[in-house]
Amino acid sequence: MASKEEIIAFLKKDFPQNKCIVEGVGEKFSRIRWPVSHEDLRPGGTVSGPSLMTAADVALYVAILGEIGIVPLAVTTNLNISFLRKPSPDRDLIAECRLIKLGRTLAMGDVFIYSDGSAQAVAHAVGTYAIPGHDKQSQENTI
Amino acid sequence: MASKEEIIAFLKKDFPQNKCIVEGVGEKFSRIRWPVSHEDLRPGGTVSGPSLMTAADVALYVAILGEIGIVPLAVTTNLNISFLRKPSPDRDLIAECRLIKLGRTLAMGDVFIYSDGSAQAVAHAVGTYAIPGHDKQSQENTI
Amino acid sequence: MASKEEIIAFLKKDFPQNKCIVEGVGEKFSRIRWPVSHEDLRPGGTVSGPSLMTAADVALYVAILGEIGIVPLAVTTNLNISFLRKPSPDRDLIAECRLIKLGRTLAMGDVFIYSDGSAQAVAHAVGTYAIPGHDKQSQENTI
Amino acid sequence: MASKEEIIAFLKKDFPQNKCIVEGVGEKFSRIRWPVSHEDLRPGGTVSGPSLMTAADVALYVAILGEIGIVPLAVTTNLNISFLRKPSPDRDLIAECRLIKLGRTLAMGDVFIYSDGSAQAVAHAVGTYAIPGHDKQSQENTI
Repeated sequence: MASKEEIIAFLKKDFPQNKCIVEGVGEKFSRIRWPVSHEDLRPGGTVSGPSLMTAADVALYVAILGEIGIVPLAVTTNLNISFLRKPSPDRDLIAECRLIKLGRTLAMGDVFIYSDGSAQAVAHAVGTYAIPGHDKQSQENTI
Repeated sequence: MASKEEIIAFLKKDFPQNKCIVEGVGEKFSRIRWPVSHEDLRPGGTVSGPSLMTAADVALYVAILGEIGIVPLAVTTNLNISFLRKPSPDRDLIAECRLIKLGRTLAMGDVFIYSDGSAQAVAHAVGTYAIPGHDKQSQENTI
Repeated sequence: MASKEEIIAFLKKDFPQNKCIVEGVGEKFSRIRWPVSHEDLRPGGTVSGPSLMTAADVALYVAILGEIGIVPLAVTTNLNISFLRKPSPDRDLIAECRLIKLGRTLAMGDVFIYSDGSAQAVAHAVGTYAIPGHDKQSQENTI
Repeated sequence: MASKEEIIAFLKKDFPQNKCIVEGVGEKFSRIRWPVSHEDLRPGGTVSGPSLMTAADVALYVAILGEIGIVPLAVTTNLNISFLRKPSPDRDLIAECRLIKLGRTLAMGDVFIYSDGSAQAVAHAVGTYAIPGHDKQSQENTI
Protein backbone atom coordinates (compact mmCIF):
# COMPACT_ATOMS: atom_id res chain seq x y z
CA MET A 1 0.00 0.00 0.00
CA ALA A 2 1.04 3.57 -0.61
CA SER A 3 -0.19 6.63 1.23
CA LYS A 4 -1.59 9.71 -0.44
CA GLU A 5 1.67 11.53 0.29
CA GLU A 6 3.83 8.80 -1.24
CA ILE A 7 1.71 8.75 -4.37
CA ILE A 8 1.83 12.52 -4.73
CA ALA A 9 5.62 12.48 -4.39
CA PHE A 10 5.92 9.66 -6.93
CA LEU A 11 3.69 11.34 -9.51
CA LYS A 12 5.49 14.65 -9.06
CA LYS A 13 8.84 13.00 -9.71
CA ASP A 14 7.93 10.62 -12.53
CA PHE A 15 5.13 12.56 -14.22
CA PRO A 16 6.08 16.21 -13.66
CA GLN A 17 3.90 17.28 -16.60
CA ASN A 18 0.84 15.71 -14.95
CA LYS A 19 -1.32 18.36 -13.36
CA CYS A 20 -3.74 16.10 -11.46
CA ILE A 21 -4.20 16.75 -7.76
CA VAL A 22 -4.71 13.67 -5.61
CA GLU A 23 -7.51 14.48 -3.20
CA GLY A 24 -8.09 11.07 -1.69
CA VAL A 25 -6.92 7.49 -1.92
CA GLY A 26 -7.45 4.26 0.00
CA GLU A 27 -9.78 1.29 0.38
CA LYS A 28 -9.75 0.62 -3.36
CA PHE A 29 -10.84 4.17 -4.08
CA SER A 30 -9.30 7.37 -5.37
CA ARG A 31 -10.45 10.92 -5.96
CA ILE A 32 -8.55 13.20 -8.32
CA ARG A 33 -8.95 16.86 -9.24
CA TRP A 34 -8.01 17.97 -12.76
CA PRO A 35 -7.64 21.75 -12.96
CA VAL A 36 -9.23 22.78 -16.26
CA SER A 37 -7.21 25.41 -18.04
CA HIS A 38 -6.94 26.88 -21.50
CA GLU A 39 -5.17 23.91 -23.09
CA ASP A 40 -8.00 21.57 -22.03
CA LEU A 41 -10.68 23.49 -23.89
CA ARG A 42 -12.17 22.72 -27.27
CA PRO A 43 -14.01 25.00 -29.67
CA GLY A 44 -17.58 25.27 -28.40
CA GLY A 45 -16.48 25.75 -24.81
CA THR A 46 -16.06 22.22 -23.64
CA VAL A 47 -13.28 20.10 -22.18
CA SER A 48 -11.38 17.91 -24.64
CA GLY A 49 -11.80 14.15 -24.72
CA PRO A 50 -8.09 13.52 -24.14
CA SER A 51 -8.22 15.57 -20.93
CA LEU A 52 -11.10 13.41 -19.70
CA MET A 53 -9.31 10.22 -20.72
CA THR A 54 -6.14 11.27 -18.97
CA ALA A 55 -8.03 12.16 -15.80
CA ALA A 56 -9.71 8.73 -15.84
CA ASP A 57 -6.41 6.98 -16.40
CA VAL A 58 -4.65 8.82 -13.58
CA ALA A 59 -7.52 8.17 -11.15
CA LEU A 60 -7.26 4.46 -11.87
CA TYR A 61 -3.48 4.49 -11.52
CA VAL A 62 -3.71 6.25 -8.16
CA ALA A 63 -6.32 3.82 -6.86
CA ILE A 64 -4.05 0.91 -7.83
CA LEU A 65 -0.95 2.45 -6.27
CA GLY A 66 -2.97 2.99 -3.12
CA GLU A 67 -3.45 -0.78 -2.86
CA ILE A 68 -0.25 -2.31 -4.17
CA GLY A 69 2.29 0.41 -3.41
CA ILE A 70 4.48 2.35 -5.80
CA VAL A 71 4.80 0.22 -8.95
CA PRO A 72 6.30 2.40 -11.67
CA LEU A 73 5.90 -0.14 -14.44
CA ALA A 74 2.16 -0.69 -14.27
CA VAL A 75 0.69 0.18 -17.67
CA THR A 76 -2.81 0.72 -18.99
CA THR A 77 -3.91 -2.09 -21.29
CA ASN A 78 -7.47 -0.97 -21.97
CA LEU A 79 -9.62 2.08 -21.41
CA ASN A 80 -13.29 2.17 -22.35
CA ILE A 81 -14.70 5.65 -21.92
CA SER A 82 -18.20 6.96 -22.56
CA PHE A 83 -18.84 10.67 -22.89
CA LEU A 84 -22.17 11.40 -21.24
CA ARG A 85 -22.64 15.14 -20.99
CA LYS A 86 -20.77 18.28 -21.95
CA PRO A 87 -18.34 19.22 -19.17
CA SER A 88 -18.35 22.76 -17.92
CA PRO A 89 -15.41 24.75 -19.33
CA ASP A 90 -14.99 26.79 -16.15
CA ARG A 91 -15.04 24.02 -13.56
CA ASP A 92 -12.33 21.57 -12.57
CA LEU A 93 -12.91 17.94 -13.32
CA ILE A 94 -13.30 15.50 -10.45
CA ALA A 95 -12.56 11.83 -11.20
CA GLU A 96 -13.55 9.13 -8.73
CA CYS A 97 -12.30 5.59 -9.19
CA ARG A 98 -13.29 2.38 -7.48
CA LEU A 99 -11.27 -0.75 -8.09
CA ILE A 100 -13.45 -3.58 -9.38
CA LYS A 101 -10.74 -6.21 -9.39
CA LEU A 102 -7.23 -6.42 -8.05
CA GLY A 103 -5.52 -9.57 -9.24
CA ARG A 104 -1.91 -10.61 -9.29
CA THR A 105 -1.23 -9.31 -12.80
CA LEU A 106 -4.30 -7.23 -13.70
CA ALA A 107 -6.26 -4.52 -11.96
CA MET A 108 -9.50 -3.03 -13.11
CA GLY A 109 -11.53 -0.06 -12.00
CA ASP A 110 -14.38 2.13 -13.00
CA VAL A 111 -14.25 5.90 -12.96
CA PHE A 112 -16.93 8.56 -12.92
CA ILE A 113 -15.88 12.06 -13.92
CA TYR A 114 -17.82 15.15 -12.86
CA SER A 115 -17.57 18.86 -13.39
CA ASP A 116 -16.81 20.11 -9.88
CA GLY A 117 -20.03 20.92 -8.08
CA SER A 118 -22.30 18.82 -10.29
CA ALA A 119 -23.82 15.47 -9.31
CA GLN A 120 -24.22 14.27 -12.90
CA ALA A 121 -21.28 12.48 -14.43
CA VAL A 122 -19.82 13.90 -17.66
CA ALA A 123 -17.98 10.68 -18.43
CA HIS A 124 -17.70 7.07 -17.27
CA ALA A 125 -14.71 4.86 -17.88
CA VAL A 126 -13.64 1.30 -17.20
CA GLY A 127 -9.91 0.72 -17.31
CA THR A 128 -7.47 -2.16 -16.93
CA TYR A 129 -3.85 -2.04 -15.85
CA ALA A 130 -1.25 -4.75 -16.24
CA ILE A 131 0.85 -5.00 -13.12
CA PRO A 132 4.35 -6.43 -13.24
CA GLY A 133 4.44 -9.38 -10.80
CA HIS A 134 3.91 -7.96 -7.33
CA ASP A 135 4.02 -9.66 -3.98
CA LYS A 136 0.65 -8.74 -2.56
CA GLN A 137 -1.00 -11.70 -0.89
CA SER A 138 -4.25 -11.63 -2.74
CA GLN A 139 -7.22 -13.59 -1.51
CA GLU A 140 -8.88 -13.16 -4.84
CA ASN A 141 -8.73 -15.37 -7.86
CA THR A 142 -6.16 -13.87 -10.13
CA ILE A 143 -6.07 -13.65 -13.85
CA MET B 1 -42.26 4.94 -15.73
CA ALA B 2 -43.27 1.36 -15.24
CA SER B 3 -43.78 -0.40 -11.93
CA LYS B 4 -42.14 -3.66 -10.95
CA GLU B 5 -45.44 -5.45 -11.54
CA GLU B 6 -45.90 -3.98 -15.03
CA ILE B 7 -42.36 -4.96 -15.99
CA ILE B 8 -42.79 -8.50 -14.68
CA ALA B 9 -46.03 -8.88 -16.66
CA PHE B 10 -44.39 -7.50 -19.82
CA LEU B 11 -41.34 -9.77 -19.59
CA LYS B 12 -43.54 -12.80 -18.90
CA LYS B 13 -45.62 -12.10 -21.99
CA ASP B 14 -42.90 -11.03 -24.45
CA PHE B 15 -39.96 -13.08 -23.16
CA PRO B 16 -41.56 -16.23 -21.77
CA GLN B 17 -38.26 -18.11 -22.09
CA ASN B 18 -36.54 -15.57 -19.86
CA LYS B 19 -36.12 -16.92 -16.37
CA CYS B 20 -34.96 -13.74 -14.62
CA ILE B 21 -36.82 -12.67 -11.50
CA VAL B 22 -37.22 -8.92 -11.04
CA GLU B 23 -36.48 -8.22 -7.39
CA GLY B 24 -36.41 -4.44 -7.47
CA VAL B 25 -36.69 -1.52 -9.85
CA GLY B 26 -36.90 2.27 -9.58
CA GLU B 27 -34.82 5.41 -9.22
CA LYS B 28 -32.59 4.40 -12.16
CA PHE B 29 -31.80 1.10 -10.48
CA SER B 30 -32.76 -2.54 -10.90
CA ARG B 31 -32.01 -5.78 -9.12
CA ILE B 32 -32.49 -9.11 -10.89
CA ARG B 33 -32.15 -12.70 -9.72
CA TRP B 34 -31.04 -15.32 -12.24
CA PRO B 35 -31.78 -18.83 -10.95
CA VAL B 36 -28.73 -20.94 -11.89
CA SER B 37 -29.72 -24.36 -13.16
CA HIS B 38 -28.12 -27.19 -15.08
CA GLU B 39 -28.19 -25.48 -18.48
CA ASP B 40 -26.20 -22.52 -17.13
CA LEU B 41 -23.26 -24.63 -16.04
CA ARG B 42 -20.00 -25.17 -17.86
CA PRO B 43 -17.46 -27.96 -17.48
CA GLY B 44 -15.36 -27.13 -14.40
CA GLY B 45 -18.41 -26.19 -12.35
CA THR B 46 -18.90 -22.60 -13.31
CA VAL B 47 -21.67 -20.49 -14.80
CA SER B 48 -21.45 -19.87 -18.55
CA GLY B 49 -20.52 -16.50 -19.98
CA PRO B 50 -23.75 -16.22 -21.99
CA SER B 51 -25.79 -16.65 -18.81
CA LEU B 52 -23.88 -13.78 -17.20
CA MET B 53 -24.26 -11.63 -20.32
CA THR B 54 -27.97 -12.30 -20.49
CA ALA B 55 -28.43 -11.45 -16.82
CA ALA B 56 -26.55 -8.16 -17.34
CA ASP B 57 -28.62 -7.33 -20.41
CA VAL B 58 -31.93 -8.02 -18.67
CA ALA B 59 -30.95 -5.99 -15.61
CA LEU B 60 -30.20 -3.02 -17.84
CA TYR B 61 -33.44 -3.44 -19.78
CA VAL B 62 -35.46 -3.56 -16.56
CA ALA B 63 -33.78 -0.43 -15.19
CA ILE B 64 -34.61 1.41 -18.42
CA LEU B 65 -38.23 0.24 -18.48
CA GLY B 66 -38.53 1.43 -14.88
CA GLU B 67 -37.73 4.95 -16.05
CA ILE B 68 -39.32 5.29 -19.48
CA GLY B 69 -42.20 2.82 -19.26
CA ILE B 70 -42.83 -0.27 -21.36
CA VAL B 71 -40.94 0.23 -24.64
CA PRO B 72 -40.89 -3.11 -26.47
CA LEU B 73 -38.58 -1.98 -29.25
CA ALA B 74 -35.61 -0.86 -27.19
CA VAL B 75 -32.58 -2.85 -28.30
CA THR B 76 -29.09 -3.39 -26.97
CA THR B 77 -26.47 -1.70 -29.13
CA ASN B 78 -23.39 -2.45 -27.05
CA LEU B 79 -22.43 -4.63 -24.11
CA ASN B 80 -18.96 -4.57 -22.60
CA ILE B 81 -18.58 -7.28 -20.00
CA SER B 82 -15.58 -8.21 -17.84
CA PHE B 83 -15.43 -11.55 -16.11
CA LEU B 84 -13.81 -11.00 -12.73
CA ARG B 85 -14.13 -14.19 -10.70
CA LYS B 86 -15.53 -17.67 -11.09
CA PRO B 87 -19.22 -17.66 -10.17
CA SER B 88 -20.46 -20.29 -7.75
CA PRO B 89 -22.29 -23.09 -9.59
CA ASP B 90 -24.77 -23.62 -6.75
CA ARG B 91 -25.82 -20.04 -6.11
CA ASP B 92 -28.23 -17.83 -8.03
CA LEU B 93 -26.79 -14.83 -9.79
CA ILE B 94 -27.79 -11.36 -8.62
CA ALA B 95 -27.41 -8.53 -11.15
CA GLU B 96 -27.67 -4.92 -10.02
CA CYS B 97 -27.89 -2.14 -12.57
CA ARG B 98 -27.61 1.62 -12.19
CA LEU B 99 -28.43 3.85 -15.13
CA ILE B 100 -25.51 6.14 -15.97
CA LYS B 101 -27.30 8.08 -18.69
CA LEU B 102 -30.87 8.32 -19.88
CA GLY B 103 -31.10 10.38 -23.05
CA ARG B 104 -33.83 10.72 -25.63
CA THR B 105 -32.51 7.97 -27.88
CA LEU B 106 -29.83 6.21 -25.85
CA ALA B 107 -29.66 4.81 -22.33
CA MET B 108 -26.58 3.47 -20.61
CA GLY B 109 -26.04 1.60 -17.40
CA ASP B 110 -23.50 -0.37 -15.49
CA VAL B 111 -24.17 -3.74 -13.94
CA PHE B 112 -22.44 -5.70 -11.22
CA ILE B 113 -23.21 -9.41 -11.01
CA TYR B 114 -22.71 -11.42 -7.82
CA SER B 115 -23.15 -15.00 -6.75
CA ASP B 116 -25.96 -14.72 -4.22
CA GLY B 117 -24.54 -14.19 -0.75
CA SER B 118 -21.13 -12.93 -1.87
CA ALA B 119 -20.00 -9.31 -1.75
CA GLN B 120 -17.42 -9.71 -4.52
CA ALA B 121 -18.64 -9.20 -8.07
CA VAL B 122 -18.15 -12.06 -10.53
CA ALA B 123 -18.71 -9.78 -13.52
CA HIS B 124 -19.08 -6.13 -14.41
CA ALA B 125 -20.81 -4.85 -17.52
CA VAL B 126 -21.53 -1.54 -19.19
CA GLY B 127 -24.38 -1.60 -21.68
CA THR B 128 -26.13 0.75 -24.07
CA TYR B 129 -29.69 0.57 -25.37
CA ALA B 130 -31.15 2.44 -28.31
CA ILE B 131 -34.62 3.68 -27.46
CA PRO B 132 -37.13 4.36 -30.21
CA GLY B 133 -38.20 8.03 -29.89
CA HIS B 134 -39.98 8.34 -26.57
CA ASP B 135 -41.73 11.26 -25.01
CA LYS B 136 -39.93 11.57 -21.71
CA GLN B 137 -39.14 15.18 -20.92
CA SER B 138 -35.47 14.85 -20.32
CA GLN B 139 -33.56 17.63 -18.68
CA GLU B 140 -30.34 16.05 -19.77
CA ASN B 141 -28.38 16.65 -22.88
CA THR B 142 -29.41 13.93 -25.24
CA ILE B 143 -27.39 12.03 -27.75
CA MET C 1 -0.39 -24.75 -32.68
CA ALA C 2 -3.44 -26.94 -33.11
CA SER C 3 -4.97 -28.05 -36.39
CA LYS C 4 -8.60 -27.61 -37.32
CA GLU C 5 -9.19 -31.32 -36.65
CA GLU C 6 -7.61 -31.20 -33.19
CA ILE C 7 -9.70 -28.17 -32.25
CA ILE C 8 -12.90 -29.79 -33.50
CA ALA C 9 -12.15 -32.93 -31.48
CA PHE C 10 -11.35 -30.87 -28.38
CA LEU C 11 -14.51 -28.78 -28.59
CA LYS C 12 -16.67 -31.86 -29.21
CA LYS C 13 -15.27 -33.53 -26.11
CA ASP C 14 -15.14 -30.61 -23.70
CA PHE C 15 -18.08 -28.54 -24.98
CA PRO C 16 -20.53 -31.14 -26.31
CA GLN C 17 -23.40 -28.65 -26.00
CA ASN C 18 -21.61 -26.22 -28.32
CA LYS C 19 -23.07 -26.31 -31.79
CA CYS C 20 -20.47 -24.17 -33.59
CA ILE C 21 -18.88 -25.62 -36.70
CA VAL C 22 -15.22 -24.73 -37.20
CA GLU C 23 -14.84 -23.85 -40.87
CA GLY C 24 -11.30 -22.51 -40.85
CA VAL C 25 -8.42 -21.77 -38.50
CA GLY C 26 -4.79 -20.71 -38.82
CA GLU C 27 -2.52 -17.69 -39.25
CA LYS C 28 -4.19 -15.90 -36.32
CA PHE C 29 -7.58 -16.28 -37.96
CA SER C 30 -10.70 -18.40 -37.48
CA ARG C 31 -14.01 -18.80 -39.20
CA ILE C 32 -16.98 -20.35 -37.41
CA ARG C 33 -20.48 -21.25 -38.50
CA TRP C 34 -23.31 -21.05 -35.97
CA PRO C 35 -26.39 -22.91 -37.20
CA VAL C 36 -29.37 -20.76 -36.26
CA SER C 37 -32.24 -22.80 -34.92
CA HIS C 38 -35.43 -22.22 -32.99
CA GLU C 39 -33.76 -21.68 -29.61
CA ASP C 40 -31.65 -18.82 -31.02
CA LEU C 41 -34.64 -16.76 -32.11
CA ARG C 42 -36.23 -13.85 -30.31
CA PRO C 43 -39.71 -12.41 -30.68
CA GLY C 44 -39.68 -10.22 -33.78
CA GLY C 45 -37.79 -12.79 -35.80
CA THR C 46 -34.21 -12.02 -34.91
CA VAL C 47 -31.28 -13.89 -33.42
CA SER C 48 -30.75 -13.44 -29.69
CA GLY C 49 -27.86 -11.40 -28.33
CA PRO C 50 -26.50 -14.33 -26.28
CA SER C 51 -26.26 -16.45 -29.44
CA LEU C 52 -24.20 -13.71 -31.09
CA MET C 53 -22.02 -13.30 -28.02
CA THR C 54 -21.39 -17.02 -27.79
CA ALA C 55 -20.48 -17.21 -31.47
CA ALA C 56 -18.01 -14.33 -31.00
CA ASP C 57 -16.50 -15.97 -27.94
CA VAL C 58 -16.05 -19.34 -29.63
CA ALA C 59 -14.49 -17.78 -32.74
CA LEU C 60 -11.93 -16.05 -30.55
CA TYR C 61 -11.22 -19.22 -28.58
CA VAL C 62 -10.69 -21.20 -31.78
CA ALA C 63 -8.32 -18.58 -33.22
CA ILE C 64 -6.28 -18.70 -29.99
CA LEU C 65 -6.16 -22.51 -29.89
CA GLY C 66 -4.99 -22.43 -33.50
CA GLU C 67 -1.93 -20.48 -32.39
CA ILE C 68 -1.04 -21.82 -28.96
CA GLY C 69 -2.42 -25.36 -29.13
CA ILE C 70 -5.08 -26.97 -26.96
CA VAL C 71 -5.19 -24.97 -23.70
CA PRO C 72 -8.30 -26.02 -21.83
CA LEU C 73 -7.99 -23.42 -19.11
CA ALA C 74 -7.96 -20.27 -21.20
CA VAL C 75 -10.86 -18.08 -20.08
CA THR C 76 -12.55 -14.98 -21.43
CA THR C 77 -11.81 -11.93 -19.32
CA ASN C 78 -13.58 -9.30 -21.43
CA LEU C 79 -15.99 -9.18 -24.33
CA ASN C 80 -17.11 -5.91 -25.88
CA ILE C 81 -19.82 -6.50 -28.46
CA SER C 82 -21.72 -4.03 -30.61
CA PHE C 83 -24.95 -5.01 -32.31
CA LEU C 84 -25.00 -3.37 -35.72
CA ARG C 85 -27.90 -4.76 -37.73
CA LYS C 86 -30.73 -7.22 -37.25
CA PRO C 87 -29.50 -10.71 -38.14
CA SER C 88 -31.58 -12.79 -40.50
CA PRO C 89 -33.60 -15.44 -38.60
CA ASP C 90 -33.29 -17.99 -41.39
CA ARG C 91 -29.57 -17.80 -42.08
CA ASP C 92 -26.67 -19.29 -40.17
CA LEU C 93 -24.29 -16.90 -38.47
CA ILE C 94 -20.70 -16.71 -39.68
CA ALA C 95 -18.12 -15.36 -37.20
CA GLU C 96 -14.65 -14.41 -38.38
CA CYS C 97 -11.92 -13.65 -35.85
CA ARG C 98 -8.48 -12.13 -36.31
CA LEU C 99 -6.08 -12.12 -33.39
CA ILE C 100 -4.89 -8.60 -32.61
CA LYS C 101 -2.43 -9.60 -29.92
CA LEU C 102 -1.01 -12.85 -28.69
CA GLY C 103 1.05 -12.30 -25.58
CA ARG C 104 2.33 -14.69 -22.94
CA THR C 105 -0.69 -14.37 -20.67
CA LEU C 106 -3.29 -12.48 -22.70
CA ALA C 107 -4.69 -12.84 -26.19
CA MET C 108 -7.01 -10.42 -27.92
CA GLY C 109 -8.98 -10.59 -31.11
CA ASP C 110 -11.71 -8.87 -33.00
CA VAL C 111 -14.68 -10.65 -34.51
CA PHE C 112 -17.12 -9.72 -37.22
CA ILE C 113 -20.38 -11.69 -37.37
CA TYR C 114 -22.46 -11.95 -40.53
CA SER C 115 -25.71 -13.58 -41.55
CA ASP C 116 -24.52 -16.17 -44.06
CA GLY C 117 -24.54 -14.70 -47.55
CA SER C 118 -24.47 -11.04 -46.47
CA ALA C 119 -21.43 -8.78 -46.64
CA GLN C 120 -22.64 -6.43 -43.91
CA ALA C 121 -21.73 -7.36 -40.36
CA VAL C 122 -24.55 -7.82 -37.85
CA ALA C 123 -22.20 -7.54 -34.89
CA HIS C 124 -18.61 -6.66 -34.05
CA ALA C 125 -16.80 -7.80 -30.94
CA VAL C 126 -13.43 -7.37 -29.31
CA GLY C 127 -12.52 -10.02 -26.78
CA THR C 128 -9.68 -10.86 -24.42
CA TYR C 129 -8.65 -14.25 -23.09
CA ALA C 130 -6.34 -14.95 -20.17
CA ILE C 131 -4.03 -17.81 -21.00
CA PRO C 132 -2.48 -19.91 -18.25
CA GLY C 133 1.32 -19.66 -18.65
CA HIS C 134 2.22 -21.26 -21.96
CA ASP C 135 5.57 -21.91 -23.56
CA LYS C 136 5.17 -20.21 -26.89
CA GLN C 137 8.27 -18.26 -27.80
CA SER C 138 6.71 -14.92 -28.46
CA GLN C 139 8.59 -12.22 -30.26
CA GLU C 140 6.09 -9.71 -29.06
CA ASN C 141 6.12 -7.64 -25.96
CA THR C 142 3.96 -9.52 -23.52
CA ILE C 143 1.59 -8.20 -20.95
CA MET D 1 -19.37 13.20 -48.72
CA ALA D 2 -16.34 15.39 -48.17
CA SER D 3 -13.06 15.23 -50.04
CA LYS D 4 -9.66 14.96 -48.39
CA GLU D 5 -9.04 18.63 -49.18
CA GLU D 6 -12.34 19.77 -47.64
CA ILE D 7 -11.64 17.78 -44.49
CA ILE D 8 -8.11 19.16 -44.18
CA ALA D 9 -9.43 22.71 -44.54
CA PHE D 10 -12.17 22.08 -41.97
CA LEU D 11 -9.81 20.57 -39.40
CA LYS D 12 -7.30 23.38 -39.89
CA LYS D 13 -9.98 25.98 -39.26
CA ASP D 14 -11.90 24.35 -36.41
CA PHE D 15 -9.11 22.40 -34.72
CA PRO D 16 -5.99 24.50 -35.31
CA GLN D 17 -4.25 22.83 -32.35
CA ASN D 18 -4.69 19.41 -33.98
CA LYS D 19 -1.48 18.26 -35.59
CA CYS D 20 -2.83 15.19 -37.44
CA ILE D 21 -2.08 14.94 -41.14
CA VAL D 22 -4.85 13.39 -43.24
CA GLU D 23 -3.15 11.00 -45.64
CA GLY D 24 -6.20 9.30 -47.10
CA VAL D 25 -9.97 9.20 -46.83
CA GLY D 26 -12.86 7.60 -48.72
CA GLU D 27 -14.87 4.41 -49.05
CA LYS D 28 -15.49 4.28 -45.27
CA PHE D 29 -11.77 4.43 -44.61
CA SER D 30 -9.24 6.96 -43.36
CA ARG D 31 -5.52 7.08 -42.81
CA ILE D 32 -3.97 9.66 -40.49
CA ARG D 33 -0.38 10.51 -39.60
CA TRP D 34 0.38 11.80 -36.11
CA PRO D 35 3.81 13.41 -35.97
CA VAL D 36 5.35 12.30 -32.67
CA SER D 37 7.17 15.12 -30.94
CA HIS D 38 8.51 15.87 -27.50
CA GLU D 39 5.13 16.58 -25.90
CA ASP D 40 3.84 13.12 -26.89
CA LEU D 41 6.56 11.26 -25.04
CA ARG D 42 6.37 9.65 -21.64
CA PRO D 43 9.15 8.68 -19.27
CA GLY D 44 10.59 5.41 -20.50
CA GLY D 45 10.66 6.55 -24.08
CA THR D 46 7.15 5.75 -25.22
CA VAL D 47 4.23 7.65 -26.68
CA SER D 48 1.56 8.76 -24.21
CA GLY D 49 -1.84 7.12 -24.07
CA PRO D 50 -3.69 10.40 -24.69
CA SER D 51 -1.73 10.91 -27.92
CA LEU D 52 -2.82 7.47 -29.09
CA MET D 53 -6.41 8.09 -28.05
CA THR D 54 -6.49 11.41 -29.85
CA ALA D 55 -5.06 9.88 -33.01
CA ALA D 56 -7.73 7.16 -32.91
CA ASP D 57 -10.48 9.70 -32.35
CA VAL D 58 -9.36 11.92 -35.22
CA ALA D 59 -9.03 8.98 -37.61
CA LEU D 60 -12.61 7.99 -36.84
CA TYR D 61 -13.85 11.56 -37.23
CA VAL D 62 -12.14 11.89 -40.61
CA ALA D 63 -13.59 8.60 -41.87
CA ILE D 64 -17.08 9.79 -40.87
CA LEU D 65 -16.67 13.21 -42.49
CA GLY D 66 -15.52 11.43 -45.64
CA GLU D 67 -18.92 9.73 -45.83
CA ILE D 68 -21.41 12.25 -44.52
CA GLY D 69 -19.71 15.54 -45.34
CA ILE D 70 -18.58 18.28 -42.98
CA VAL D 71 -20.68 17.90 -39.82
CA PRO D 72 -19.10 20.07 -37.14
CA LEU D 73 -21.32 18.88 -34.33
CA ALA D 74 -20.60 15.18 -34.46
CA VAL D 75 -19.25 14.11 -31.07
CA THR D 76 -17.56 11.03 -29.71
CA THR D 77 -19.81 9.10 -27.36
CA ASN D 78 -17.58 6.11 -26.67
CA LEU D 79 -13.99 5.11 -27.24
CA ASN D 80 -12.67 1.69 -26.27
CA ILE D 81 -8.92 1.52 -26.73
CA SER D 82 -6.51 -1.34 -26.07
CA PHE D 83 -2.79 -0.71 -25.80
CA LEU D 84 -1.01 -3.63 -27.44
CA ARG D 85 2.68 -2.81 -27.73
CA LYS D 86 5.02 -0.01 -26.82
CA PRO D 87 5.06 2.55 -29.63
CA SER D 88 8.40 3.71 -30.94
CA PRO D 89 9.30 7.17 -29.57
CA ASP D 90 11.05 8.19 -32.79
CA ARG D 91 8.44 7.21 -35.34
CA ASP D 92 5.23 8.93 -36.33
CA LEU D 93 1.99 7.18 -35.51
CA ILE D 94 -0.20 5.97 -38.36
CA ALA D 95 -3.90 5.46 -37.56
CA GLU D 96 -6.14 3.60 -39.99
CA CYS D 97 -9.90 3.60 -39.50
CA ARG D 98 -12.60 1.55 -41.16
CA LEU D 99 -16.23 2.43 -40.53
CA ILE D 100 -18.16 -0.55 -39.17
CA LYS D 101 -21.55 1.13 -39.16
CA LEU D 102 -22.94 4.34 -40.52
CA GLY D 103 -26.48 4.90 -39.33
CA ARG D 104 -28.66 7.96 -39.27
CA THR D 105 -27.59 9.10 -35.80
CA LEU D 106 -24.62 6.91 -34.90
CA ALA D 107 -21.42 5.93 -36.65
CA MET D 108 -18.92 3.38 -35.46
CA GLY D 109 -15.46 2.45 -36.61
CA ASP D 110 -12.42 0.51 -35.61
CA VAL D 111 -8.92 1.89 -35.69
CA PHE D 112 -5.51 0.26 -35.75
CA ILE D 113 -2.55 2.43 -34.80
CA TYR D 114 1.00 1.61 -35.90
CA SER D 115 4.43 3.10 -35.42
CA ASP D 116 5.30 4.18 -38.95
CA GLY D 117 7.13 1.40 -40.75
CA SER D 118 5.94 -1.43 -38.48
CA ALA D 119 3.26 -3.97 -39.39
CA GLN D 120 2.30 -4.69 -35.80
CA ALA D 121 -0.36 -2.49 -34.25
CA VAL D 122 0.52 -0.62 -31.08
CA ALA D 123 -3.13 0.05 -30.26
CA HIS D 124 -6.61 -0.91 -31.37
CA ALA D 125 -9.70 1.18 -30.76
CA VAL D 126 -13.42 0.99 -31.40
CA GLY D 127 -15.22 4.30 -31.32
CA THR D 128 -18.74 5.65 -31.67
CA TYR D 129 -19.84 9.09 -32.79
CA ALA D 130 -23.28 10.64 -32.41
CA ILE D 131 -24.24 12.49 -35.56
CA PRO D 132 -26.76 15.32 -35.45
CA GLY D 133 -29.61 14.38 -37.82
CA HIS D 134 -28.16 14.27 -41.32
CA ASP D 135 -29.80 13.67 -44.64
CA LYS D 136 -27.83 10.77 -46.01
CA GLN D 137 -30.14 8.21 -47.56
CA SER D 138 -29.02 5.17 -45.66
CA GLN D 139 -30.03 1.73 -46.73
CA GLU D 140 -28.98 0.41 -43.38
CA ASN D 141 -31.04 -0.05 -40.31
CA THR D 142 -30.35 2.97 -38.20
CA ILE D 143 -30.09 3.26 -34.50
